[in-house]
Amino acid sequence: MRVFLKIEYDGTAYSGWQIQPNGITVQEVIEKAVFELTNEKVTLTGSGRTDSGVHAQGQVAHFDTKSSIPAEKFAPALNSLLPSDVKIIYSKQVGDDFHARFSAKKKTYCYRAYESEQPRPLKDRYMTKLNFKVDHEKMNQAAQKFIGKHDFACFLASGSDVKDTVREIYFAKVERFNEDVVFTVCGNGFLYNMVRIMMGTLVKVGVGKMSVEDVESLIKSKERGKAGITMQPQGLTLLSVEYD
Amino acid sequence: MRVFLKIEYDGTAYSGWQIQPNGITVQEVIEKAVFELTNEKVTLTGSGRTDSGVHAQGQVAHFDTKSSIPAEKFAPALNSLLPSDVKIIYSKQVGDDFHARFSAKKKTYCYRAYESEQPRPLKDRYMTKLNFKVDHEKMNQAAQKFIGKHDFACFLASGSDVKDTVREIYFAKVERFNEDVVFTVCGNGFLYNMVRIMMGTLVKVGVGKMSVEDVESLIKSKERGKAGITMQPQGLTLLSVEYD
Repeated sequence: MRVFLKIEYDGTAYSGWQIQPNGITVQEVIEKAVFELTNEKVTLTGSGRTDSGVHAQGQVAHFDTKSSIPAEKFAPALNSLLPSDVKIIYSKQVGDDFHARFSAKKKTYCYRAYESEQPRPLKDRYMTKLNFKVDHEKMNQAAQKFIGKHDFACFLASGSDVKDTVREIYFAKVERFNEDVVFTVCGNGFLYNMVRIMMGTLVKVGVGKMSVEDVESLIKSKERGKAGITMQPQGLTLLSVEYD
Repeated sequence: MRVFLKIEYDGTAYSGWQIQPNGITVQEVIEKAVFELTNEKVTLTGSGRTDSGVHAQGQVAHFDTKSSIPAEKFAPALNSLLPSDVKIIYSKQVGDDFHARFSAKKKTYCYRAYESEQPRPLKDRYMTKLNFKVDHEKMNQAAQKFIGKHDFACFLASGSDVKDTVREIYFAKVERFNEDVVFTVCGNGFLYNMVRIMMGTLVKVGVGKMSVEDVESLIKSKERGKAGITMQPQGLTLLSVEYD
């Protein structure tokens, strides 16, 4: 049977989602837990990668197993074996035509930042510090320019070899909660580092180094060099992945 | 001169605020940073202790120094020496009659919990998991019974040798944010473990094991045994300490 997992993780200690030669990854610790539980070497297919240090509140993955454990029991059983920073929120059986990556219709991310002169220990794990004030209303106006189907080559990490850089963004907003500035974005897919570069660009707008209109011409230019910096990973959280 | 510090810390790695023979404390790491900076062995006086694993967003402390460093420069200077989980939000000079503990007029704490079957890695550092649903409205009604000047002996950790157990609570509320249930309480002072036992009592009300009226009779009884459990430390945060 094919098992669906909804996964939450604090990415601080991990070299991202996907298994790689150096560093412990989230995929690896879950595959190890499945092996401990079922004695099967499964391959976990995630909805997509998350980078080193990035968090997930709603990552989705699937794997195939011959185990007789009921699919919904995998969550508590795996949780008893998993470290405290990676847990399965729930598990269920899905059809063999379900694929965590290819069946995904929408993904939502949020990027959290805060304005402060001094570092804030209770924020630093899940947010990025801004040493300056930003105009969140301008940032929100700029974020609206992301909406729609565009070639987002300007937000693709340089060195990436992805060919199709067209993605559709369904909604994007920037909200302020006191000194916290939160960017939430939902789309049919995201390029490597795309949300972090989008946030770097919004911050550029927020400090007045770029206008809302500049964002439109930036997207048209397809030039990575004209966008903002790639913001630090710890501010980014994959909130959810949606399927039909 | 006397220097005032507003301090934020993630208490996860610390054996509480106050220096003790075993385990690293927040007071100790700040005194060490002051020594590295000024070469003076100062004693830091906090507004009060926080227990092992408890967090603070607005702890206040003072110390006396002969240093010529301007008081407001202590925050950035100490932050460059402090670990990432303890930082000074700001520093300023205060009169010699200011005392972080004796001059404190109000303290505000919050206790954060969440309802979930499975553990949630992005919540577990600063919240406590409840394995069941609670009625937050009933909990909020019960919290109103805390308000006023009462003998709170029923909320004092057993074994504590405090004599005066009368405190005044100015406000108390329980709010829900989706699966999160947050208790905020402000008073002129708190007994050892008081907020954690208050929350344990509110949870008892939230699951129907105690009525709102029972809370009134509990306070009158002054019996610790009739109150709820002492909730885990990581859900507790000292939000602020107020002075005249």
